[in-house]
Amino acid sequence: MADDLQSIRQRLADNLRRLRTEQGWSQEQLAALAGLHHNHISAIERCKLSVGIDVLEKLALTFGVTAGELLD
Amino acid sequence: MADDLQSIRQRLADNLRRLRTEQGWSQEQLAALAGLHHNHISAIERCKLSVGIDVLEKLALTFGVTAGELLD
Repeated sequence: MADDLQSIRQRLADNLRRLRTEQGWSQEQLAALAGLHHNHISAIERCKLSVGIDVLEKLALTFGVTAGELLD
Repeated sequence: MADDLQSIRQRLADNLRRLRTEQGWSQEQLAALAGLHHNHISAIERCKLSVGIDVLEKLALTFGVTAGELLD
């Protein structure tokens, strides 16, 4: 995968794992809070998905951050 | 569609149209520069797509902005 595409997936995975663990949440707990399936969270944290912005917004709202803060 | 999900699609559509027209690019020209199909750009600007982060990164790199700047 082109370097840049891997980097945005990696940035999101790293930000998501950091924010989730700071809250002390498991992937299942985050999925439940965000209205997502826990497999989805696992796949995002393993850079397996080109996550859609609708899912990104759900995650951002759950953490109280902007979608941009999850990506940059 | 939930208000928040519509808002992230609308923010992206507005930012994309503003950046594109500032460059004087048509949707076709932007699509060619970003390596996307022009229907893709049209659908994004009409809020019809939950765009994936891989596409978002391609657009951000084309404009020389961060993915977050396209969404916030």
